[in-house]
Amino acid sequence: MTNEHGIQPVRWQNDTLELLDQRVLPDEVSYLELKTVTEVASAIRDMVVRGAPAIGIAAAYGVVIAARQRYTESATDWKVLLEADLELLSAARPTAVNLNWALQKMHQLVTGIEDDPVPVLLTEASRIHDEDIAANRAMGELGAALIEPDSGVLTHCNAGALATGGYGTALGVIRSGWQSGVINKVFADETRPWLQGARLTAWELLQDNIPVTLLVEGAVSSLLQTGQVQWFIVGSDRIAANGDVANKIGTLAGAIQARHFGIKVMVVAPTSTIDMATPDGKSIPIESRDPDEILAMVGKGIAATGSHAWNPVFDITPASLVDVIVTEKGIVEAPDTAKIAALMRA
Amino acid sequence: MTNEHGIQPVRWQNDTLELLDQRVLPDEVSYLELKTVTEVASAIRDMVVRGAPAIGIAAAYGVVIAARQRYTESATDWKVLLEADLELLSAARPTAVNLNWALQKMHQLVTGIEDDPVPVLLTEASRIHDEDIAANRAMGELGAALIEPDSGVLTHCNAGALATGGYGTALGVIRSGWQSGVINKVFADETRPWLQGARLTAWELLQDNIPVTLLVEGAVSSLLQTGQVQWFIVGSDRIAANGDVANKIGTLAGAIQARHFGIKVMVVAPTSTIDMATPDGKSIPIESRDPDEILAMVGKGIAATGSHAWNPVFDITPASLVDVIVTEKGIVEAPDTAKIAALMRA
Repeated sequence: MTNEHGIQPVRWQNDTLELLDQRVLPDEVSYLELKTVTEVASAIRDMVVRGAPAIGIAAAYGVVIAARQRYTESATDWKVLLEADLELLSAARPTAVNLNWALQKMHQLVTGIEDDPVPVLLTEASRIHDEDIAANRAMGELGAALIEPDSGVLTHCNAGALATGGYGTALGVIRSGWQSGVINKVFADETRPWLQGARLTAWELLQDNIPVTLLVEGAVSSLLQTGQVQWFIVGSDRIAANGDVANKIGTLAGAIQARHFGIKVMVVAPTSTIDMATPDGKSIPIESRDPDEILAMVGKGIAATGSHAWNPVFDITPASLVDVIVTEKGIVEAPDTAKIAALMRA
Repeated sequence: MTNEHGIQPVRWQNDTLELLDQRVLPDEVSYLELKTVTEVASAIRDMVVRGAPAIGIAAAYGVVIAARQRYTESATDWKVLLEADLELLSAARPTAVNLNWALQKMHQLVTGIEDDPVPVLLTEASRIHDEDIAANRAMGELGAALIEPDSGVLTHCNAGALATGGYGTALGVIRSGWQSGVINKVFADETRPWLQGARLTAWELLQDNIPVTLLVEGAVSSLLQTGQVQWFIVGSDRIAANGDVANKIGTLAGAIQARHFGIKVMVVAPTSTIDMATPDGKSIPIESRDPDEILAMVGKGIAATGSHAWNPVFDITPASLVDVIVTEKGIVEAPDTAKIAALMRA
């Protein structure tokens, strides 16, 4: 399946995995070729590729690369050798559950493979990739259908084509709602420290000629006060069984402010993001990254020399602050354990 | 009065006004000499000096410079000529009321002056400066007395020595509470877009050997959830007669999150910041600045080319979200119009 938006964070070409290097966007559109599984794990860890669904897809292709290596090393022992590679990929980033979801799907196939594993595994990785794009399209329609005409929306971080197989989760809803005409204003906060909003979301939307206004996260309340925004729309890195939502740091702040001003909160994520093994948000591991992501910017120190920083990169928005979760299988309003369980059984 | 902290954003030396250039801190500690009133107005507009009380003090010295110029031009007509200079200074920044408060104090003296205005006006400007430092010391003690032992505090922007005559408002309370031992943890958010927290507050506190941990504004809720913070302490650029507080963009977000998590909100400001002529927050003019403050950083574009941004630099925290206002005349808990009026009559 081709992503008609032309934005492909992950692609497989000429037997090679290529990742759009999101660290240098929007200045450069540059693909890195990944030849080994350790390169794939490093690319995930270093945020060459980011966004829960995109990480899952990259990891699936990473398993293809790993299996190819291991099968070349030993046609008899490759399955045993592959276990370490799966561990390596799994450990690359802790919060996004799509990573392990994709690895499990790939792993399940391994047992039944008799000879060269590459064709079977590549077919599965491509299928995961294609299904993600299809899920985004479906969520785009389901989410946009909830939005009244003449609405403005605010999004946080980048839950777009760049964060997924293509089209996007939160930005999929915004693309769909813009196209159908119900959304007439799009705001994106810049999303410190990595500036996914300013660097990635603005770039993506401008590619599609969707005008977007950036603001600092401190201005979100001022924006919501103006009445220009009806929905705060975000993606997710993991949704617990009770509907608690892990997402980029600052999502909880946005949801608390949205509730304060009577603005609705929509979380858009495929069911691969829902982790039924995690009962609630407290059980979701929160990644902390290098304080230098805060203390320096564009290669230059910005904080006072000697400063320390705390850099958790995800937070947990409790289900009670979420008005609706949109998945490819359907929507869940006022999410709770029973409703999430019913969705996953459907 | 000497500021024993050594941090003097505004100083008068050898008949010259010198401003510590806050645009280049913490990389450089550099004073600019201001020789004309237009230079003073530009320095205020361009944020060489910032922080409501410091702006007021700089403007007071600006009146001395203006009067000296005008008196040299015409010993008979200088008072008329000075009116335009007062207008120029007044228009430099719209939100901070201390600017007009200081200009009015200087203006009131002008009528009675018979010959060379410089000695009288310089004495008054120095008095405004000294009284601000004394007010900060008083507020520091009053505010710290409200804090229970073993408390952690979070501050926003820079309401420190750099924003005042010296010692600081919010940071005055934090200095005082750190010294008395009731405060044992200090957190500062970086405060986009100008990074006053990362650049100025961290620098100031490190000068005093007060350890500070920086975080992005998106991580404030995550921090408050940890239980390490008991007070959110900020300054103000203008307090309306009903207790609504104008302060750096992001203050309202912090106050909403603080209330959500049961953390108390303290606003520290001298009575020169209280504007009895402004009935409520809706009547306070909110300055918007150049979108490039968001779209570029350290001289380099950070957002996608073609992005637009909205850059309001103050917001209004309603009195209902403020637990206490600390002034040099006393504290006002759960502020409202009657309590503010009583304070100002005292």
